[in-house]
Amino acid sequence: MALDTLRLLASCPDRPGIISTVSGFLYERGANIVRSDQYTSDDGTFYLRMEFTVPTGHRVDLVETYGLAVANPYGMSWRVADSRYVKRIAILASKADHCLVDLLWRWRRGQLPAQVTLVASNHPDVAPTVESFGLPFHHVPVPPGRKADAEADLADVLEDQCDLVVLARYMQILSGGFLGKIGVPVINIHHSFLPAFPGAGPYERARARGVKLIGATAHYVTEDLDEGPIIEQDVIRVSHRDDTARLARLGADVERTVLARAVQWHCEDRLLRHRGTVVVF
Amino acid sequence: MALDTLRLLASCPDRPGIISTVSGFLYERGANIVRSDQYTSDDGTFYLRMEFTVPTGHRVDLVETYGLAVANPYGMSWRVADSRYVKRIAILASKADHCLVDLLWRWRRGQLPAQVTLVASNHPDVAPTVESFGLPFHHVPVPPGRKADAEADLADVLEDQCDLVVLARYMQILSGGFLGKIGVPVINIHHSFLPAFPGAGPYERARARGVKLIGATAHYVTEDLDEGPIIEQDVIRVSHRDDTARLARLGADVERTVLARAVQWHCEDRLLRHRGTVVVF
Amino acid sequence: MALDTLRLLASCPDRPGIISTVSGFLYERGANIVRSDQYTSDDGTFYLRMEFTVPTGHRVDLVETYGLAVANPYGMSWRVADSRYVKRIAILASKADHCLVDLLWRWRRGQLPAQVTLVASNHPDVAPTVESFGLPFHHVPVPPGRKADAEADLADVLEDQCDLVVLARYMQILSGGFLGKIGVPVINIHHSFLPAFPGAGPYERARARGVKLIGATAHYVTEDLDEGPIIEQDVIRVSHRDDTARLARLGADVERTVLARAVQWHCEDRLLRHRGTVVVF
Amino acid sequence: MALDTLRLLASCPDRPGIISTVSGFLYERGANIVRSDQYTSDDGTFYLRMEFTVPTGHRVDLVETYGLAVANPYGMSWRVADSRYVKRIAILASKADHCLVDLLWRWRRGQLPAQVTLVASNHPDVAPTVESFGLPFHHVPVPPGRKADAEADLADVLEDQCDLVVLARYMQILSGGFLGKIGVPVINIHHSFLPAFPGAGPYERARARGVKLIGATAHYVTEDLDEGPIIEQDVIRVSHRDDTARLARLGADVERTVLARAVQWHCEDRLLRHRGTVVVF
Repeated sequence: MALDTLRLLASCPDRPGIISTVSGFLYERGANIVRSDQYTSDDGTFYLRMEFTVPTGHRVDLVETYGLAVANPYGMSWRVADSRYVKRIAILASKADHCLVDLLWRWRRGQLPAQVTLVASNHPDVAPTVESFGLPFHHVPVPPGRKADAEADLADVLEDQCDLVVLARYMQILSGGFLGKIGVPVINIHHSFLPAFPGAGPYERARARGVKLIGATAHYVTEDLDEGPIIEQDVIRVSHRDDTARLARLGADVERTVLARAVQWHCEDRLLRHRGTVVVF
Repeated sequence: MALDTLRLLASCPDRPGIISTVSGFLYERGANIVRSDQYTSDDGTFYLRMEFTVPTGHRVDLVETYGLAVANPYGMSWRVADSRYVKRIAILASKADHCLVDLLWRWRRGQLPAQVTLVASNHPDVAPTVESFGLPFHHVPVPPGRKADAEADLADVLEDQCDLVVLARYMQILSGGFLGKIGVPVINIHHSFLPAFPGAGPYERARARGVKLIGATAHYVTEDLDEGPIIEQDVIRVSHRDDTARLARLGADVERTVLARAVQWHCEDRLLRHRGTVVVF
Repeated sequence: MALDTLRLLASCPDRPGIISTVSGFLYERGANIVRSDQYTSDDGTFYLRMEFTVPTGHRVDLVETYGLAVANPYGMSWRVADSRYVKRIAILASKADHCLVDLLWRWRRGQLPAQVTLVASNHPDVAPTVESFGLPFHHVPVPPGRKADAEADLADVLEDQCDLVVLARYMQILSGGFLGKIGVPVINIHHSFLPAFPGAGPYERARARGVKLIGATAHYVTEDLDEGPIIEQDVIRVSHRDDTARLARLGADVERTVLARAVQWHCEDRLLRHRGTVVVF
Repeated sequence: MALDTLRLLASCPDRPGIISTVSGFLYERGANIVRSDQYTSDDGTFYLRMEFTVPTGHRVDLVETYGLAVANPYGMSWRVADSRYVKRIAILASKADHCLVDLLWRWRRGQLPAQVTLVASNHPDVAPTVESFGLPFHHVPVPPGRKADAEADLADVLEDQCDLVVLARYMQILSGGFLGKIGVPVINIHHSFLPAFPGAGPYERARARGVKLIGATAHYVTEDLDEGPIIEQDVIRVSHRDDTARLARLGADVERTVLARAVQWHCEDRLLRHRGTVVVF
């Protein structure tokens, strides 16, 4: 018997009986729960992620009846993701290629549960690299004073091409209008341990401040620069001997690892946004 | 309405319906699940930990009926721990006091969800320290060739006094007979990153081998020295400049942190043994 | 032949010949260099730390002639510290005792190369703990609106009693006037990974921001709150499950370790201040 | 005036005057020391690394006279490395390409102070990747029972082509005879935290043992498998949820980082072998 693996993500005001209702509903439809995570936030919101297998024939009925049978009585926000659906990723980069190349190699090795569909950049430098992976490359320059036009071009490039946009050291601020227009989540990697050193030049400022660890932060992009919900962070030890160039080189290893983890988790439907933060299941 | 917080720990062969059955059973008895963790091992064993609140009056009935209603049909091993029951801990130490003192301070600050009931040692050195915490101290020397007698004395000291024995750098090997006699779990801290450097003198051997990280391992004690199921490990970076004395000093900070975590998790009923390993929920 | 171990700390504009001159000078006076560290900052300042042994009889002559023979020609700032001179430390605390207790235990075990001479606090809570270590305790309350008086009292307590003041979670801001008056370095532990979350309530703000690592920072105290030169930092991983109380408990382990390292390095004369940063040799 | 940057690496029995003699010698020849590191091992051996600039014209004389003027009187082993000489690296790989690709990208970005000259493998799989970097690829199969022939072929491929051989997950044991014949240092990456889990299948064994951290070890290769001097190690946290495939994927990130650091340090002449260990300056 063929099985589908589905992932239910749900949130609602906490009250007794939610797990019993959900798991009972799933059991009646022949599902087997393989992983379940829940969390109730300080403000009383219940979050749930259940991964379960279900006979292929039961899938449609299960999804169709869930709303009426379970979600409505609990006032639940929910979605069911099918693990067979491979999310499409568009990557935006600028000149630095370490995060881009890292993602492309993971994808080529089959380690990224996603399909990279295109790469776009405001510079042409990474074109040969992208093309060596057999991927379309789009050069969308951002001339001074023409940001709105560039964003319109970029939106055209991305339209219907992706379920997620990854900013792999894309050194342009995206407007709220652009984010609204593309309508898919955007993940950015910032080269500091936020909220330390938001904005430009974090390695220079880390050096001037004499910090003993530098870091990187992957976050969902919102209109507020470097203020979006944090998905993942990591750090590496440095010393006074490491000048800014060396901080940038050491930091690059952290950036690519942190970004890869965030993208992986997003594609595995393990991330739920809760106010300004992210629950990682 | 008064609520009890209970923790159900269960394992059984995996099959569909377990979570539905358990959570339905709990819901019918007025319980609210506040945290649920599950894991199915490679060999098909299902492990579950559910923490839930239940009206005080329902507790006895819930525990009494669980076996027949839930556990038996699934062939389940299980227990329910009441979070109000504070586990009693006996600590064994030798001369080094860093792990002992660390546990006693956490306990005094109310950060250890347990009651330390006594400390015993094969040396008298830590007696004043123990007594300054208002705790009974037992000196149980282990003279050469008199190990069996010493273990008998130690078993007498521990009898009915504890739900857990913690070896806080107790430098004596315990026999299988002793472990069987005391009949409660024993947690040890080993001063290396096991399985590297089992047995005596790990810091000397780490130094001779030129490792770049040293570590500590907390594990349940079994008859096989340093082979018991690993609960927690951590490491710290070292260099050629760190001689053995300095390795020991740096390692002491790791030892006490790792041991404290392991003891805390045990007391929170978060550890399930699976063959030679430990599932940490 | 009796040997003294001395530590030379020096800085001057970088130019060829410094090491040759210094080491030649030392060799002629019978010294044996056991460790040497140097660093030239981006702005061309040369920093040197040399640890060396010298026959006891030669010490005075060496120190007296160094200025004329070596320091003056190079325009060098310098000092020679005698490792036999044990620095005197005064510790200031408030109610939380984890950093205080950690330092006191390291000191009692002989692991802190320093002499703790007194503890003062704006609260009486830690008095019994301090006295159990056989140390004088001074209660210097800071009533609202009477900060200047309290600082005057505190300065009296500290006068001639210490070579270093350690703020072990002392929750009072010290004025520039006070710092000038006591005239010895002051090391503080801040419970965040600076420059993230300066000021009050860092764990609350870390929780609200959803960071994935929390940290602690030891720094020299200056008039500018939480802006002083950073000595050491470290972090620990956290998740959405860790509420503020748990962040504080996890962070406490990082705070005490980071502070102990900073104090240890200061007492070993391994720290040189360079503009707003600290060179750790 | 043109300057050369040279690196002196030296070891000899420790005694007073070494630094004075070396730095005086360098100063007289117009050198400026930019970094100096020293270490005296427990057994009284003095190790020194000095990086210095010297007017181009003085270089030959300096190297020629050093032996007589400095090294001989102290019984010193020594060499002077010219930072302009770029070491040639040959990389051996098998089927897994993550370490290989990581090194090649660092090299292409100009972050590896070395020249990769060729890649050889016992499998043809990585050929297209290697060729996309414009590098020669040599397929040297190792059929069962024909290891000696294969090693002879491999030695022919490497002859006069490299100053360092890097085993980037090359899954073949090299004989002492082969190591002697190629006559250059060989660095290997082992996919465990040695001395834990030497030999084959470390991730399987880590999983079975239930360790909480997995690691990787870069070491110089000797005849004794996985016993060579350790250069660098690092670890990553894992849990019972990570099956062997996932351990391998997580470990791959550690492997490539650890190997890259070791190769970088070797190429910067920062590694000195001391008995079975490595001093990292």
